[in-house]
Amino acid sequence: MKASIVGASGYAGEELIRLLHAHPFVEVAHLTSERHTGERVSKIYPHLKNIYENELVSMEDVRRIAEDSDVLFIALPHGHAMKIVQEVSACSVRIIDLGADYRFADTAIYEQWYHVAHTDPSADRAYGLAELYREHVRTARIIGNAGCYTTASILALAPLVKAHLVQLDSILVDAVSGVSGAGRSPKESTHYPEFYDSFTAYGAVSHRHTPEIEQALADVGGTPVTINFTPHLAPISRGILATCYAMLCEGVTAEDVDAAYEKMYADEYFIRLLGRGAYPATKYVRGTNYCDIAWHIDPRTHRVIVFSAIDNLVKGAAGQAIQNMNIAFGLDERMGLDLVPMYP
Amino acid sequence: MKASIVGASGYAGEELIRLLHAHPFVEVAHLTSERHTGERVSKIYPHLKNIYENELVSMEDVRRIAEDSDVLFIALPHGHAMKIVQEVSACSVRIIDLGADYRFADTAIYEQWYHVAHTDPSADRAYGLAELYREHVRTARIIGNAGCYTTASILALAPLVKAHLVQLDSILVDAVSGVSGAGRSPKESTHYPEFYDSFTAYGAVSHRHTPEIEQALADVGGTPVTINFTPHLAPISRGILATCYAMLCEGVTAEDVDAAYEKMYADEYFIRLLGRGAYPATKYVRGTNYCDIAWHIDPRTHRVIVFSAIDNLVKGAAGQAIQNMNIAFGLDERMGLDLVPMYP
Amino acid sequence: MKASIVGASGYAGEELIRLLHAHPFVEVAHLTSERHTGERVSKIYPHLKNIYENELVSMEDVRRIAEDSDVLFIALPHGHAMKIVQEVSACSVRIIDLGADYRFADTAIYEQWYHVAHTDPSADRAYGLAELYREHVRTARIIGNAGCYTTASILALAPLVKAHLVQLDSILVDAVSGVSGAGRSPKESTHYPEFYDSFTAYGAVSHRHTPEIEQALADVGGTPVTINFTPHLAPISRGILATCYAMLCEGVTAEDVDAAYEKMYADEYFIRLLGRGAYPATKYVRGTNYCDIAWHIDPRTHRVIVFSAIDNLVKGAAGQAIQNMNIAFGLDERMGLDLVPMYP
Amino acid sequence: MKASIVGASGYAGEELIRLLHAHPFVEVAHLTSERHTGERVSKIYPHLKNIYENELVSMEDVRRIAEDSDVLFIALPHGHAMKIVQEVSACSVRIIDLGADYRFADTAIYEQWYHVAHTDPSADRAYGLAELYREHVRTARIIGNAGCYTTASILALAPLVKAHLVQLDSILVDAVSGVSGAGRSPKESTHYPEFYDSFTAYGAVSHRHTPEIEQALADVGGTPVTINFTPHLAPISRGILATCYAMLCEGVTAEDVDAAYEKMYADEYFIRLLGRGAYPATKYVRGTNYCDIAWHIDPRTHRVIVFSAIDNLVKGAAGQAIQNMNIAFGLDERMGLDLVPMYP
Repeated sequence: MKASIVGASGYAGEELIRLLHAHPFVEVAHLTSERHTGERVSKIYPHLKNIYENELVSMEDVRRIAEDSDVLFIALPHGHAMKIVQEVSACSVRIIDLGADYRFADTAIYEQWYHVAHTDPSADRAYGLAELYREHVRTARIIGNAGCYTTASILALAPLVKAHLVQLDSILVDAVSGVSGAGRSPKESTHYPEFYDSFTAYGAVSHRHTPEIEQALADVGGTPVTINFTPHLAPISRGILATCYAMLCEGVTAEDVDAAYEKMYADEYFIRLLGRGAYPATKYVRGTNYCDIAWHIDPRTHRVIVFSAIDNLVKGAAGQAIQNMNIAFGLDERMGLDLVPMYP
Repeated sequence: MKASIVGASGYAGEELIRLLHAHPFVEVAHLTSERHTGERVSKIYPHLKNIYENELVSMEDVRRIAEDSDVLFIALPHGHAMKIVQEVSACSVRIIDLGADYRFADTAIYEQWYHVAHTDPSADRAYGLAELYREHVRTARIIGNAGCYTTASILALAPLVKAHLVQLDSILVDAVSGVSGAGRSPKESTHYPEFYDSFTAYGAVSHRHTPEIEQALADVGGTPVTINFTPHLAPISRGILATCYAMLCEGVTAEDVDAAYEKMYADEYFIRLLGRGAYPATKYVRGTNYCDIAWHIDPRTHRVIVFSAIDNLVKGAAGQAIQNMNIAFGLDERMGLDLVPMYP
Repeated sequence: MKASIVGASGYAGEELIRLLHAHPFVEVAHLTSERHTGERVSKIYPHLKNIYENELVSMEDVRRIAEDSDVLFIALPHGHAMKIVQEVSACSVRIIDLGADYRFADTAIYEQWYHVAHTDPSADRAYGLAELYREHVRTARIIGNAGCYTTASILALAPLVKAHLVQLDSILVDAVSGVSGAGRSPKESTHYPEFYDSFTAYGAVSHRHTPEIEQALADVGGTPVTINFTPHLAPISRGILATCYAMLCEGVTAEDVDAAYEKMYADEYFIRLLGRGAYPATKYVRGTNYCDIAWHIDPRTHRVIVFSAIDNLVKGAAGQAIQNMNIAFGLDERMGLDLVPMYP
Repeated sequence: MKASIVGASGYAGEELIRLLHAHPFVEVAHLTSERHTGERVSKIYPHLKNIYENELVSMEDVRRIAEDSDVLFIALPHGHAMKIVQEVSACSVRIIDLGADYRFADTAIYEQWYHVAHTDPSADRAYGLAELYREHVRTARIIGNAGCYTTASILALAPLVKAHLVQLDSILVDAVSGVSGAGRSPKESTHYPEFYDSFTAYGAVSHRHTPEIEQALADVGGTPVTINFTPHLAPISRGILATCYAMLCEGVTAEDVDAAYEKMYADEYFIRLLGRGAYPATKYVRGTNYCDIAWHIDPRTHRVIVFSAIDNLVKGAAGQAIQNMNIAFGLDERMGLDLVPMYP
């Protein structure tokens, strides 16, 4: 199987290269980078020396690339994938977009939060969060890979919403990400002396992952949901920890909560339930496709607090994309993703 | 003025030494450490070489120390201060306890959360958070210095509660601390390879700073309050960021919120209001007694989100203690605390 | 093939588990830990949840373990391996010791630097640095896996010494290690607030890796060598960078130096020559068995400066051990070690 | 006394602001920044909110600024100071240049290493390293503040060279700096995910601090010196550790070395001799003007190894500049610099 990556010079693209290297059935065929066209991958990513010596090409050739690929990963900011999909519409290639263009069933929500017109609203697409939308992923031509914060948040809250255990207007997500989620371009705010040894928030009440979480929770619960989502940045490279809060419905017990998680995730390989009273940490999932989940019940306030941890570049991006690819091509979901966290 | 520190070998004790060194009216008289009795301070704290070469003494001599001091800082885990206060009851020394023993007006709450009997419930004491309890601090013999998380949380929420702008049963505090708050004793969880590049929570629904926050909010609001408080640890050395959530009461506007903060803190030197829509960061207060506060209003959920940042060892411990000392002795509150954050 | 690990609860043991998981021919059979006997691996290493749920056993059963294993990795401090080898002397198991007991051809040197008597001086052993001692590794019953600093230092200097390009009494190694090399036991010096954002040296003129470097350089050069080796600790988790200095012999040119590296390492898969004028970084080898090498010539002082970077837990410990195992069992050297660095 | 800073928006300029705030006799008068002209200092440095609300002006007005200042600090890259000095030649202001323009007695060396013509070779200037050139600093109109690596290296080696204890052609400096030394402009190499958890070298055999070290050692020793200097970058914000090597001259004893340090530095307030066998660490000098020094003798190789630690932004830049200012104006050298390291 041949896989190509549009936007290979960002962190998500580079992580796809790392993970696909371990996939028994996939060969990395073409890699594009507009900024580094004509350069070798190992020049911009010296860690890949002797491993990938391919030359980066321009995405101007995306049609030819698509014709020579079974699957096309798009790892670019939102807005690009819609155009690429149009350009390769004649090819039979399956498309996995790591950006936001194909994540929303209702493209009006996309347009409202991303402030661009959606030019491909009727595409044959699935929301790429396998644990909830596996059957869609299996058959859709385009997979809109779930976002990083959203993956952690939705997987943490879905069992509670699905089992109708929580008051929907009480849901809050307070999340923390490693800085690799902000991409490879240096900025003053992520300059080492500015970023190390500090902690701050951003995007309060306005982060674009908010409606994506709401969409999935509405899907599993059958009712619209409005939430607060507050992202923060910690001086870590990889990892997301989502701390989720909700008021339990009248009469719901701790055992009801336990049962909801067990029921929904007992057979999910990539979800590790640490159980009631435990604490996930981003270090325990580093470099892997796992999502670790634990929950706590507060009898004083009748709230449930759920923690979930992922590696934002794996389960939050490249790993999830490969999981989706495996499903879309009828392979074992774990193929290439049977990884041990790098620790310490 | 002579100041002595009981428990000088922990981080809070050491930070008292650093800050008192810059205080024009204070001389550090005696320093105790049980583990290092007889050693020089500069042996256990090599950064103090040539600056403090005092010998550490045992707190067995606390009575004699108290007699030779105007103010006694106690920087020990809870439970010790009650005993020390008893031992020095005959001395006229003012006592500032950085632990929890003298923080609660209702010692039953202390006993319930700390699982020890309170042996000095009728002491002449003040809760040492100057911005709210300045008059008490001025006169009380014993000052129960406010905790680190609690300082950040209370200062963030007090204006909203005081002005009755938020629904009291909707208050949540999601906070992150640097690891110096966990003390100087090495543990596996804070071993560098275990702690760097990871993020996790702890103490959900059970952290002892919860009732302390509730006490102060009840005081300013005039009604009991029950909250959720969830602490996290980020790989930073110093700093706390508290992210606080509450539902606005019917009809409350963003301008009402702005006004509440201005009204309460306009004259507070150590509180810097960054305003609506801003983001405090722990790096901006590093090494100083400032508390930076900003807030956001979500029109979709009618919630207010407040961020506050402090240095846990300064405004959350040693700096606040010196601020309290200044008040108690009729000095300018800023004395010794007119510091510029160390940046980067 | 069955592999067992004596001392599985340290970082090197845990890294063996991670790497062996990806080895197509090896099954992890038994894991010992004295401190955690009877506990599940995933309890002390939560990142292994669902991956390794084996129970840790005591090394008191090492003979039975050895009988049920093809290869035994010993990941314990020096002094233990000698005893274990004796206990399992009747078994046909191959032994790879990650400690120092079997690294020295002349056990008097071991005794002098490690201050213990060597009880097994005539063992059938090889020094486990494949690039230099591959043929010994192939056949020896016991492999004394090379140390971390030593691997980086020897690989950097061997071509120069072998080709007689440098003055032997001018060799200096100034090296920096990540803290995982100091093990998993928490100490005050590696407590996060003490270790982050600081840089220091240790073990000057006395570090035990000194004679190990000298032994290998004497072997390749055919003459005894005495060097200075100065280790430092940087706030990184994994990685070693060795900066090596030597005076070039009269008449040696930059091209001679280039040729020496090419000649010795052209066919070595795990050595990546970055060339003259380049700079290895520990991040480029993170999590892999690569050793990246580059060199610089100073025409002003006629010195050559060589930089080499490894991951101390992989090429400096567990990865090298697996490389040695592959050689010892006639497998492809790269098996299980065809890894892409985890970046960023 | 009025002090102005040309180039106030870099880290050295900002550190001057922090330190001058604590100076009893100095008022910060004017601050220039070309990139941020017209903005408030606290907008680009939020940590200075309420502390410095001055407006940044352009250095086009440097003559007017100089007329209104007693001392002018220039914190700009090399090449700028020469022009500014010319512009303000009519003013009586004392000038302290934190760049390289006025560091070299022989401007040919400057031109050779910095690749620009020196336009002011006959200026009345001193090399601003007070411990060695105090008398020059006292009277010179222009002080060329010593560089960061150079300060640590020269102070470490000067006693050995002065007392003729070491072979001059054997001197090597292997040094490590925190990233704040590379300035405030974000680069890919100092982007957090690229810089954290990695260690690397740069500038081997070509770093511009090399001739500056050689100049001072030649001055104290009375003979030209050629050295190797190899800088590295560690994931720390502040701090330099220099590890210096030299062969002892025939017959030199450890006691001779001890005596040389004692003799030269016994009365130097900012130099703290940790003694033979100790290890300075950058954390012990963080935020202060101290230089901590320790040394080791290797009887096997007859080499001396000297470690010295400074804070690159203080003793390596802004603190040294203030120390020089104090000397130049006849003040106590310690004024404004009586600081306790911020620890942890």
